[in-house]
Formats: sequence, C-alpha cells, structure tokens
Amino acid sequence: MAAKLTEGERAEHLPALESAGWSMVEGRDAIRKRFTFRTFVDAWGFMSRVALAAEKLDHHPEWSNVYRTVEITLSTHDAAGLTALDVKLARRIEALVG
Amino acid sequence: MAAKLTEGERAEHLPALESAGWSMVEGRDAIRKRFTFRTFVDAWGFMSRVALAAEKLDHHPEWSNVYRTVEITLSTHDAAGLTALDVKLARRIEALVG
Repeated sequence: MAAKLTEGERAEHLPALESAGWSMVEGRDAIRKRFTFRTFVDAWGFMSRVALAAEKLDHHPEWSNVYRTVEITLSTHDAAGLTALDVKLARRIEALVG
Repeated sequence: MAAKLTEGERAEHLPALESAGWSMVEGRDAIRKRFTFRTFVDAWGFMSRVALAAEKLDHHPEWSNVYRTVEITLSTHDAAGLTALDVKLARRIEALVG
C-alpha cells in the first residue's frame, strides 16, 4: 500500500507541480488543477489520454468536466492523502499537455 | 436558442426521468443522477458513449467521475435552466445504460 508523502518528499516534489499550476486543496491532503481547452472535443481527447494513463498506473483521478474545462483532483484514498502515485500521475498528466 | 421547459413540458417529461433516478438539483434548474459501475473501465466506457452522444447533440453534461462512479448534471447554460435538450440527452443516457 502506498504511504503518505513525507515532509522531505513533499519538499522535493510539490514545488515543481505547484509551478505547473497544481495547488493544495483546502481541507484535504490533495492537489488540484484546472485545464481549459479550445473545445469539448479537445477536453475529451485530453481526458481519454489521462484515463489510459490512470488505468495503466492503477491510480485514478477525481475529476470533472464542464464543456471545455477539466478539473482534476489527485489524492490516494487508501492512504487518505498524497502519495508517490499522485506525484507520478500528475507528472504523466503534465507530460500529456506539455 | 433553446427555451426553458414550460410547466406543461416539465409535467410531461420529468416524472419519467425521476422514476429513472434523476432528481432536481437544489438551488438550480437542473437534474442530476449518479451512476455506479463495477470498475473504472466500465465507468469510462459509459462516459465515452455519453461523450459521443453529447457531441452529436451539441449539448454537453456537467459531470464528474471518481473511480467507478459517474455523476451527471444536466442544464442548459444559454437558457439558465432545463430545456428540451436536457430531456433529450438524459433519455439518450438512459438508453445507454438500459
């Protein structure tokens, strides 16, 4: 089972994600980012790629879509907080939009 | 532009959707339903079919996915409430899970 990130791991990994637009969710040990695309089709294409990456990692986002925007929240349910899996999925998501 | 459903249209169309598990959203003229699947892959398969139906109708849901659950809210932004498009999309979604 994934363990919650230590303070050292947070200091190592979170700043780069925060620079990329991820922020801590208020009241939860989770990170969130909103992505905006040109059209619904573009947003859906992005979601499809994230879905495949998530399934491959066996780690899934909490996410919502309203027309051309997608909001993704990452946290590890089993650990009740951020783990290395969230960092890994966030990085893969960033690689998809990069 | 789509017009908000009249009282008569609501009486005609909403009861069947409510029987199917849709309910009015508190504080908004919108309907919502939560779907639960066996796995993320099943949930994603459902979402993919809904996405194609929505794009074909050019009317898109507000929706979220957490692992094997999908919550869909329907309302028409341009009309600030429920229109015939929402009824049509809800019915197509029901046909997908039926």
